[in-house]
Parts: sequence; C-alpha cells; structure tokens
Amino acid sequence: MAKSMDQTENIIIGIDGGGTGCRVAIANSGGKIIGEGRAGPANPTNNAQNALANLLEAIEQARKSARLTRTDLAKAAAFAGLAGVRDDKTARLIADGLPFENLRVVEDTVTSVTGALAAKNGSVAPIGTGSFLARRTKDGTKYLGGWGFMLGDDASGAWLGHQLLRQTVLCVEGVENHTGLTLETLAGYDGDARNIYDFCNRATPAEFGKLAPKIVAGATGGDKTATGLMQAGADYILRALSALGYAEGEALCLSGGLGPHYKTYLPPQYRAAVIKAKGSALDGALLLAAGLRV
Amino acid sequence: MAKSMDQTENIIIGIDGGGTGCRVAIANSGGKIIGEGRAGPANPTNNAQNALANLLEAIEQARKSARLTRTDLAKAAAFAGLAGVRDDKTARLIADGLPFENLRVVEDTVTSVTGALAAKNGSVAPIGTGSFLARRTKDGTKYLGGWGFMLGDDASGAWLGHQLLRQTVLCVEGVENHTGLTLETLAGYDGDARNIYDFCNRATPAEFGKLAPKIVAGATGGDKTATGLMQAGADYILRALSALGYAEGEALCLSGGLGPHYKTYLPPQYRAAVIKAKGSALDGALLLAAGLRV
Repeated sequence: MAKSMDQTENIIIGIDGGGTGCRVAIANSGGKIIGEGRAGPANPTNNAQNALANLLEAIEQARKSARLTRTDLAKAAAFAGLAGVRDDKTARLIADGLPFENLRVVEDTVTSVTGALAAKNGSVAPIGTGSFLARRTKDGTKYLGGWGFMLGDDASGAWLGHQLLRQTVLCVEGVENHTGLTLETLAGYDGDARNIYDFCNRATPAEFGKLAPKIVAGATGGDKTATGLMQAGADYILRALSALGYAEGEALCLSGGLGPHYKTYLPPQYRAAVIKAKGSALDGALLLAAGLRV
Repeated sequence: MAKSMDQTENIIIGIDGGGTGCRVAIANSGGKIIGEGRAGPANPTNNAQNALANLLEAIEQARKSARLTRTDLAKAAAFAGLAGVRDDKTARLIADGLPFENLRVVEDTVTSVTGALAAKNGSVAPIGTGSFLARRTKDGTKYLGGWGFMLGDDASGAWLGHQLLRQTVLCVEGVENHTGLTLETLAGYDGDARNIYDFCNRATPAEFGKLAPKIVAGATGGDKTATGLMQAGADYILRALSALGYAEGEALCLSGGLGPHYKTYLPPQYRAAVIKAKGSALDGALLLAAGLRV
C-alpha cells in the first residue's frame, strides 16, 4: 500500500491541446507511458467550456488505460500546454476545471519548445497551420511571432495557402504570370476566381493550410510561384531568428508539419545548424510535468 | 396634364448604395436635381432585406423632396449601382423590390467608373476602404481587382491599415525598425501588441481603413514605413494598369477617398496623365439612368 502511494506520487501527466484536438499521456516514475487519451479541440480562447470538456474526456481515457483511480490521478503532477492560453485568467479557468492538485497550465508554445529541444539550448521554429519562433539560452527563453492568421503567422501553412490564393487571382487577371501551381489551384476551384473569393471569405486558417503541401511539392519540383512563397517564408524565419539574437552555429530546430520543409530555402550555414526535434509538444509537457515533482 | 406626363417621363433617378450608406438623386429633363434622399447600408450580399429597406427609405425621401406622386416615380427611368451585386440573381432580387418600371441594377463599380469618366475613355482607380481598377476604351470597359479585404483590395484603406498593424507588431518584436508612425500606432493601442492582436481578430475592413489617413499624412511627412506602404500600393496600381492594357498618356482618374493620394507615388508620365473625377458614383448612376430613357 505504501509502495503504491510512492508510485502514484511519481506519476506524471502531460497534456497537449490545440485548435484541432488534444492529447494526454501518463508516464510512470521510470518515464514509461502507461496511459494515453485523445479528444477534440482544446483552445480555451475559442471555447473554454468545450476545451474543458474535451480535456476531461482525454484525461479520463488516459486514466482508464493507465488503470489509475481518480484519487491516484489527483495526486500526480500534471503539465498542460494549450493553444490560446495568453493570460493568467484563462490558465486559471482551465486549471480550476481539471482534477489535479499539482497542475500548471501554459501556452503550448512552451511545451512545443521544450519538446523540440528537451534540455538543449538553441532556436526553434515550430511551423504548422500557424507559426512562431523561440530561442533558449542560459538566460531563459524568448518568443517571437505567433500572432495568428489575421496579424502574423508568416511562413505558416495558413499564410502559404492564403498567399497562393492571392497570387492565383492576380494571375487570372494578368497582373502576375501563371505557373503550373496557380493553374492547378485555379482548376481546384472549377476555374472560377469567384469560387476562390467565396472560399477566402469563409475559410478557417486550417482550411487555408490544407493548400500548403501543394506549395511544398511545387517548390520541390521547381515551380516559380511555389519557390517564391517558400523563399518568402524562409526570409521571415531568418529575420525572426536575427531579431531573437540567433548566432550562427547555434542549434536550429525546424519543427511542426511545415518547419522541416523550409531547410532547403535557408543559407548553407543555417542548414548546417539544423537539428531534428527531440520530441513533440506532448513530450515537452511530460518533461515539464516531471519538473513539477521537485 | 399632357405636359406633366411628358415631364415625368423624362425624370431620371440615380441610386448609389454601399456598405455604409445609400444615396438617391432625382433629376428633371434638364438634368437639374429636384430631389434627394439618403439612408443606411445597401450592400445586398451582406443583408438583402436590410438593403432593400434602406433603398426604399432613401427613394421615398427623394420622391417627397421632388414632390412627385408614387405613380410619377414608377414611370421614371432609374439606375442603381450597389456594392456586392455580383450576379443576376442578386440584381433581380433588388429590382423586384423597388417601385420602378424601368430600372437597371448593377454593381457600383459600373456607376463609379461612369461617374469618374463621364463620356471619356481612360482608366480609373477608385480607392477607398476597398479598391478596384477599370479601363474604358472604344471596345468597352474592363475591370480588375475588387476582391475584397480577404483576397485582394491591395492599395485600399483596409489594406493600408492592415499592413501598418502587421508592420507595427514586427517592429515591437525587433524584426523591423520602428518609425514615428509605428510608434504612434502602437501608442494608439496602449503600447501593447496584444491589443493590436485583439483588434485584428474583430475589425471590419472599414475599421482597418480608419488608419489610412495617418499613413497618407506620415508618407507626406517622410515617414519611412508610411512611404513604403504608399509606394507598395502605387506599385500595385501600376501593375494592375499594365494588366488592363493601359497605354502611357491615356487619362488616369484616381478617385475615391484615397485614390488621389497615390498620385505622388506614381512615375512622372503617369502623374502627367492624372485627371480629376468628373463626378461621383451617384452622378454616374444619373448619367446611366438618362441612357435608359432612349
């Protein structure tokens, strides 16, 4: 019985929540995953009650698969990184709704950087539907970008997709010259720019982002429009790294679904510094949860 | 009595409707305005029933001030240019709701170009909250742009304001260098980029456009950010004119609230071709209504 208590106290819980879904992992004192769960969106800025309900569902799934009681679960150290947690009020709202005595809730930028770098210093460019950059040194971590589709997120999938549609309409009008990619994009809207107009007025960032893989592939194949967009995204990454104080040779982790695809468009000295992500944002949450036990 | 009938048959009605308000003018056979009315928004794509109600209110005001009976009004030739009329279905919906036997409903781009050029050929760049360009030759009129805030409207007030906010946040992060204008803009959001983020996620194009006068003024005063934005807008105008087939020396009318401000940023040969707008979109509607009498 005493042994069981010790084990429970060393259990850690990592939580990763974004605009499309959330994931929960439970690890034992040896770091082995003993339970997992996943559920729907968990961005509390979009819909806090819905985010809480999805988090609770994923936590309950993970608890059952780990064969823990609710009492055991409550004593574990938990760390949650959630998209859209930009102030203490939102963090508290979520923390108050989750069944843990020892819990921290932060923005998922933190868990994403820790997941990518683990204990190392260096810079990270997590680029998926959205984008941001971070640089960790012995003095701490600085963040840049992450302003969302309407204000920022340059180089992101949503940004790439949106730029491609703008470019396609300019080609239709003869302001720019068509390439294979813009012709293919136009064909995807039945050859009618008015369908692109309708799409743009209702599409979510994730929907714009669905065009990104075609841009990545087009650039690999030498398409001029696609290459121009990837290069513009890479230029933003370089300017952002410079603003963060990045020094040549420091480890640079291009993470997320799109990050690694920008490597080709960076100058050689940056390409040489590129490292693979150690793990995901969920791994980062587990690492940070382990730190809460101290 | 016969004379009164003749006069009524020669009466023309011009209607101009946009996203912020609508205007109606009634002119007699001599072209003299004898009645006017104005009411709220009349963009049928946003809200067709509301647009109709506002148009009817403005028409009724104009009828009363012109001292016409409803029967007289019904016989007059009327021409309406309304924002958001992009297909025949929308045009018919509005036409069916208005009390005229002889009425045409088109997009306000048409009345705006006719208002600016009257009977002349040439190119027009009507630039206000949104933007588009048109070129009229002996072969007809070609239109370009006007894709709205999400997809196009480059050089417009909404575009200028949005670009300024993007630039300001890049300056806050050290990716770009602050100028007087970005510092002043940041101060307008209590020095906190998060307030710009919140604004961007809820602002309408017209609200973004409210920042445009500061950009125009900043550029006049030599501010580097402001000058860069005005130059980028002017570059779009030049590329669009080229796509329309504009030949040097042809009349170029920069209309709308912002259009005239771009003159300074065009090359000398374009500046030399700039003409003043003959009249407004409402004047264009009256001209086109006169054509309906034939």
